[in-house]
Amino acid sequence: MIVEQTPVLIALDWGTSSLRAFLVAADGAVLERRAAQRGILNVPDGDFAATFAEFVGPWRAQHPALPAITSGMIGSRQGWREVPYVEAPAGLDALARGLALVEGGQFSIVPGVMLRAGASPPDVMRGEETQIFGSLAACAPDEAGVFILPGTHSKWALVEAGRIVWFATFMTGEVYGVLKAHSILGRQMEGEADDADSFRRGASHAFDQSATLGGLLHKLFSTRTLGLFGALPARGTAAYLSGLLIGSELDEALPAITAWLGRPPSRVGVIGEESLARRYVEALSMHAIEAVPAAADAVALGLLRIARAAHLVKD
Amino acid sequence: MIVEQTPVLIALDWGTSSLRAFLVAADGAVLERRAAQRGILNVPDGDFAATFAEFVGPWRAQHPALPAITSGMIGSRQGWREVPYVEAPAGLDALARGLALVEGGQFSIVPGVMLRAGASPPDVMRGEETQIFGSLAACAPDEAGVFILPGTHSKWALVEAGRIVWFATFMTGEVYGVLKAHSILGRQMEGEADDADSFRRGASHAFDQSATLGGLLHKLFSTRTLGLFGALPARGTAAYLSGLLIGSELDEALPAITAWLGRPPSRVGVIGEESLARRYVEALSMHAIEAVPAAADAVALGLLRIARAAHLVKD
Repeated sequence: MIVEQTPVLIALDWGTSSLRAFLVAADGAVLERRAAQRGILNVPDGDFAATFAEFVGPWRAQHPALPAITSGMIGSRQGWREVPYVEAPAGLDALARGLALVEGGQFSIVPGVMLRAGASPPDVMRGEETQIFGSLAACAPDEAGVFILPGTHSKWALVEAGRIVWFATFMTGEVYGVLKAHSILGRQMEGEADDADSFRRGASHAFDQSATLGGLLHKLFSTRTLGLFGALPARGTAAYLSGLLIGSELDEALPAITAWLGRPPSRVGVIGEESLARRYVEALSMHAIEAVPAAADAVALGLLRIARAAHLVKD
Repeated sequence: MIVEQTPVLIALDWGTSSLRAFLVAADGAVLERRAAQRGILNVPDGDFAATFAEFVGPWRAQHPALPAITSGMIGSRQGWREVPYVEAPAGLDALARGLALVEGGQFSIVPGVMLRAGASPPDVMRGEETQIFGSLAACAPDEAGVFILPGTHSKWALVEAGRIVWFATFMTGEVYGVLKAHSILGRQMEGEADDADSFRRGASHAFDQSATLGGLLHKLFSTRTLGLFGALPARGTAAYLSGLLIGSELDEALPAITAWLGRPPSRVGVIGEESLARRYVEALSMHAIEAVPAAADAVALGLLRIARAAHLVKD
């Protein structure tokens, strides 16, 4: 017997390049979904209301009283409405209190999170906080853990007692993208970054602290010289650069995480698109760190948890 | 009374994007010059011989027996003829022995230099070796010193007893260029990298080792967050990024130089285009290192010294 579940929430993950919408049941199950390349930079004429109506209208017609909530760059200065960041440490309660109601209560936008750390420039996230709270149950049952959210601007976050206590951004994905598309390194590449052996060589070179020259600006040039001397095949060059950059990200992030925890992490949750997440899992394994992949729809569960904390959805 | 000097050499600096040609006297003085955006990637139809004839023809017509010599990427795989690298340590004699005669002795191409350093990928230069030998007299009279050649692929080199004994490449200029033109950091920039205060802030942030997050992939993101919080003016963003990258280059290179010398360098020769060289002088001053700018035409003197070592020009 199939029991038809009742939706309790319309949940939107509205980022820079894409928009994903979910019809969510009380247990977090996704009943229906819509997705398109309608991120905030790709909304026709910047008409967010029209895109919202197109995506949410049919569900609202069927379920008129259903609350809607959205997270991501839609709440940034370039989005529909700028929603102030809440400061870390931040849990579900803080995110619920920071929700912004838009257009006469039609839907709510989740705030981003800001971290002030001493004299350093502040760090920010928008959308990743929701993915983290959606992944806690699967990746860190005791509401504590380390998370990586690979991407254009990769995030590392530390959760303790159900609150994001620390995080940091790394421009890994964007640096890879612009070097591949526009630099001399890209001109010698053939194919994509799927050569596992070259990826591991790049990551190993990033990890190598034995040389007196340990920095990225110098190590990047090895992508060129190895190709020049026939020591790296053209079809492995993209993977080598990817390994070098992801390896460098691990090298930067792990000491900070270790300082926080008082020991190196043994397990890390990886939240993101599968082919990219796989590369992080590989690089983490070279540090003997176990990676726990998060569910692809973690963001829908995160939005449901925030909506519950804000009493938009009854327990 | 004006004594007209007799030319002894036609000297060409033929790089990736530009070509500079000099008519050189016995004391290294430049008697005439021609320059154009005719680097090896901009030669019409890849017809190097035609461009050579156009630049050198009039001088050869006046001085039929004059030897000609060229350095730079013209000797690379993408150039007129690939000339094998000589291995560091390399002095004038090694460069003279490595000269390649082209087109029936019409002119010679200076080889590049390669450095093999343990298990690290090899490093290479083409053209910078000639600039260094042209700058030794002015910057390092005892034929020993540290040199920086800022640019797309910035080089640091160490000269001892008239030989290049060590060098390293940093992709600083290219990373700056692609991030400015193609990344989210560039989208928030207004104007060029000439805001001195923002440059110093970027360099200071690069030098700051107090944070647990010392790496470049993370620090790059401060360019965005400082702008986001109104802590960096849009007209200072390019200078901040430039300071961050040049500062990071210093942070990578100085420990290696210090390890070689057994002490931090107190003086460094800076060879390159003036506005860029000025930024390195500024960043070096923040480390209390004196910078000695090289003459713009140093390459002509370098080519003359190599031609003499090869007996193309009589002493």
